[in-house]
Amino acid sequence: MSFLSFLLGEKKQTASVAKERLQIILAHERAGRTGADYLPALQRELVAVISKYVSINPNDIKVHLERQDNLEVLEVKIELPEASRY
Amino acid sequence: MSFLSFLLGEKKQTASVAKERLQIILAHERAGRTGADYLPALQRELVAVISKYVSINPNDIKVHLERQDNLEVLEVKIELPEASRY
Repeated sequence: MSFLSFLLGEKKQTASVAKERLQIILAHERAGRTGADYLPALQRELVAVISKYVSINPNDIKVHLERQDNLEVLEVKIELPEASRY
Repeated sequence: MSFLSFLLGEKKQTASVAKERLQIILAHERAGRTGADYLPALQRELVAVISKYVSINPNDIKVHLERQDNLEVLEVKIELPEASRY
């Protein structure tokens, strides 16, 4: 499960993990060098869509946007309260 | 850039890469073992939102859903034609 563990930044899962977590990674590899500045707006819409399925506290959302050469990566980490599904 | 390259499954980027690519990874780590079967529906809504920002051909979308223990990972890979941004 190295890939999945890598995604969540976990060495391993333990029973002590109490909170649920949701993570979104959006990667855009461009052919040219034109900037894709739509990612922050897209992120807001993605969070709005996800909030239809799970209960999200805006304070528990952490967003990281990274731009390197032709690659843009938007990472959204969300801590969910337990049993947060509608 | 190992993390980003890892995400896109690339050894390295070359000038020969012609198409733009968009990748979404949605990982849900649950506290319990209750299934989160909302991911496929959520995926459809995510793709609908993204299609508002970039031109998506339904044939160019590849979806992979993986479930392991308390972790569910939805991966959506989209090949974009060049200059596909609205």
